[in-house]
Amino acid sequence: MVKYAVLRRDPYRRRIVAHAVLAAGAMALLASSTTGIGPGVPAAGSTTAARSVILLIGDGMGDSEITLARNYTVGAGGELHMDRFPMTGTYTTYSVDARGKPNYVTDSAASATAWATGRKTVNDRVSKTPDTDRAVPTILELAQRGGFATGSVTTAELTDATPAAIAAHVTDRSCQGPADMALCPADARSEGGPGSIAEQTVARRIDVLLGGGRQRFEQTITEGPERGATVVHRARQRGYQVVTDADGLGAARRGRPVLGLFSAESVPVEWTGRPAAAAGTAPQRCVRTNPGRSSRIPSLEAQTRKAIELLEAGASRKGHGKGFFLQVEGASIDKQNHDADPCGQIGETVAFDRAVKAAREYAARHPDTLVITTADHGHSSQIVPMAARPGGLSATLVTDEGALMKVGYATHVGEEGQEHSGVQVRVAAEGPQSHRVLGSHDQTELFTTLRLSLGLN
Amino acid sequence: MVKYAVLRRDPYRRRIVAHAVLAAGAMALLASSTTGIGPGVPAAGSTTAARSVILLIGDGMGDSEITLARNYTVGAGGELHMDRFPMTGTYTTYSVDARGKPNYVTDSAASATAWATGRKTVNDRVSKTPDTDRAVPTILELAQRGGFATGSVTTAELTDATPAAIAAHVTDRSCQGPADMALCPADARSEGGPGSIAEQTVARRIDVLLGGGRQRFEQTITEGPERGATVVHRARQRGYQVVTDADGLGAARRGRPVLGLFSAESVPVEWTGRPAAAAGTAPQRCVRTNPGRSSRIPSLEAQTRKAIELLEAGASRKGHGKGFFLQVEGASIDKQNHDADPCGQIGETVAFDRAVKAAREYAARHPDTLVITTADHGHSSQIVPMAARPGGLSATLVTDEGALMKVGYATHVGEEGQEHSGVQVRVAAEGPQSHRVLGSHDQTELFTTLRLSLGLN
Repeated sequence: MVKYAVLRRDPYRRRIVAHAVLAAGAMALLASSTTGIGPGVPAAGSTTAARSVILLIGDGMGDSEITLARNYTVGAGGELHMDRFPMTGTYTTYSVDARGKPNYVTDSAASATAWATGRKTVNDRVSKTPDTDRAVPTILELAQRGGFATGSVTTAELTDATPAAIAAHVTDRSCQGPADMALCPADARSEGGPGSIAEQTVARRIDVLLGGGRQRFEQTITEGPERGATVVHRARQRGYQVVTDADGLGAARRGRPVLGLFSAESVPVEWTGRPAAAAGTAPQRCVRTNPGRSSRIPSLEAQTRKAIELLEAGASRKGHGKGFFLQVEGASIDKQNHDADPCGQIGETVAFDRAVKAAREYAARHPDTLVITTADHGHSSQIVPMAARPGGLSATLVTDEGALMKVGYATHVGEEGQEHSGVQVRVAAEGPQSHRVLGSHDQTELFTTLRLSLGLN
Repeated sequence: MVKYAVLRRDPYRRRIVAHAVLAAGAMALLASSTTGIGPGVPAAGSTTAARSVILLIGDGMGDSEITLARNYTVGAGGELHMDRFPMTGTYTTYSVDARGKPNYVTDSAASATAWATGRKTVNDRVSKTPDTDRAVPTILELAQRGGFATGSVTTAELTDATPAAIAAHVTDRSCQGPADMALCPADARSEGGPGSIAEQTVARRIDVLLGGGRQRFEQTITEGPERGATVVHRARQRGYQVVTDADGLGAARRGRPVLGLFSAESVPVEWTGRPAAAAGTAPQRCVRTNPGRSSRIPSLEAQTRKAIELLEAGASRKGHGKGFFLQVEGASIDKQNHDADPCGQIGETVAFDRAVKAAREYAARHPDTLVITTADHGHSSQIVPMAARPGGLSATLVTDEGALMKVGYATHVGEEGQEHSGVQVRVAAEGPQSHRVLGSHDQTELFTTLRLSLGLN
């Protein structure tokens, strides 16, 4: 096992935090009679365990991407739903190499592994160690064992890195379906491994799985005891209701797990516009539709609401008082950033923000819910002065408040598209244990926060 | 008066914050017996007023710049002093045009005006309105009137935008000395105005003024009742002890105000290295010295410690229980970013972080001190993957933990250098009223936080 980079655990800081929170709380206690908050209201930042946790990941949603979406839609002085969380802090997001040395720019697989398992790993790896390539238990697995209902919603393929990291363990993130196993010999069925991300995800019998990537699940399993059938066929055999559009999702009923596969690859984005270009673009308004997106595809918000409804029903049916763990990913904030497409990127950020709204509305009715939103890493887009000529690509937008906004993309010049950045990212939360996001931490701390909030050991 | 962009004031959010802080505080109260924090310790986040406030501004110190400095020095998993604040949030930083429409990328003058006065203004303006060009009272002026000792420390010229905004009111930030008034006809002595930033700063009789910009103060006043003498001469006449090096600063005594002018222009930076280049640089270690910086120049940390000592003594002498307001600026994080010089930038960030350390050590001994650190705007530097080829300039550093870090600068291509970015920035705090930085706010809220913490109306 490598020597993992030492996490920032400063007893002095912890003491200061406790001290400050103590004092702030005492203050709020005094003030509560005037704010109308009664002492009987369940605790929003308490040490008590949460009944449920909703974790919302904006992939590549650094502070620059948040600011862009705010400026464009509600205005520079406006407020997104994700701006309304009471507890806020920052996470560092680096990955490591096989010797444990930092890699200052993480990919989504290593980043998701960090909060899914509490351990740093190498880029492209999914919830396995950086050196010995061994599986590390994920927060979703721990929640399942602890009796919680579990779910995963994404605008990416359900086998993409971020959803994969809570549901599967593979050497390389590319091993999404049975036909994609080239870089994961140790995980192959022929070697006694658990197979591809799609196979592992379905075998885990997660209660709700909604997203894209139907192509991966339609691949035929060619090795091991399940060979000869597609992954989606095996899912049905395991009891899954398989749905492929909004009507199907609407008709899904509690009692059996749900696998929603709404597109062959990533779910098409919501907004369109002219991508950034070397010479910039003329000032443009984004188009809030996408001809390539079928109206039969449910929005991320609708998927999130349905997932919560199904998980809540499933958890209540068990009758032991435990709720659910749900991860929601806005994946194409990242993908559109890679493509230097500001309208696509902003539209996906706004779609993600509406999923945040859905989660916060549920938490308002169920205050024993911990809601956390953060990003897995920063990205390329920068808001630059109108007179600037960025070194890479740029585009000019006319925002809803009628001002010009210039966006630069210059992390990489080449056909591969833009790159991630190594900047620390924002985290925001409300509900039990939400005070744990205050201050500056590494994203591996998110695993601990999730674990403690669900009362898992 | 323009219609200012509406600030984000969400009663629901305020309620949630109070609720969360209440619950977190109750939790901490329960936990305090195990953490050893007694109930008699003065409140770190309470509603009580602060005796003193230390505001530390990292100019252009966005989250990317913070991450760069952390990675290089204490490592990706390490902790800067500024990482240790218990209360954290984000500020938006946009400016406005004369009609009140947002300008998504602020300059340092409009940004400093925002927290100095609580009002948005146009880029380049210093604590005057964006349309009618009228002076707006600053937090330093209010603190002076309220009986607090006041101070300003910077690595820039003392007449540069950030220190200027608390001490002066001019139409354009370029009006730094008596000979620089071309863009500020309304402020000219010949028009009955208060004159240049240097003249106004000295006339304000601020207790401690430390920084660069001696050239501005050595200009001769050519208009108005004080004409014929230099600004520094007038300062002496007003009782200032004028010092120009570390020995002089060390010998400065309480009882009379101190004007420290340690360099003709900006204070030379602490670290040097090869700037970013179009083809990148070979992997390099930063040099932790600068041949262009005299050993007689006190560090920002030393200036901050001396400023605190003088202000504390001055405040105590008054005997009315009030403390001081001190602003400390790390100015050349911004300036080195404009020059795409990663070593210069990191060295200045680290120098600023040591000033944060000095402030926190004072606050540890005086828990009735509010310490806040934030940035005035984001900037250019991005941490990119080693394989990336940024569109603008780039450099590769070998960090203290022995890993490679590639830094891209691509907000602008041209001799003018790099540009600011419009990204929201981090704010962190400890002490009375520090809970007010939690969440997402506009930087104009910082004015209110400063005002409330000092009990000023």
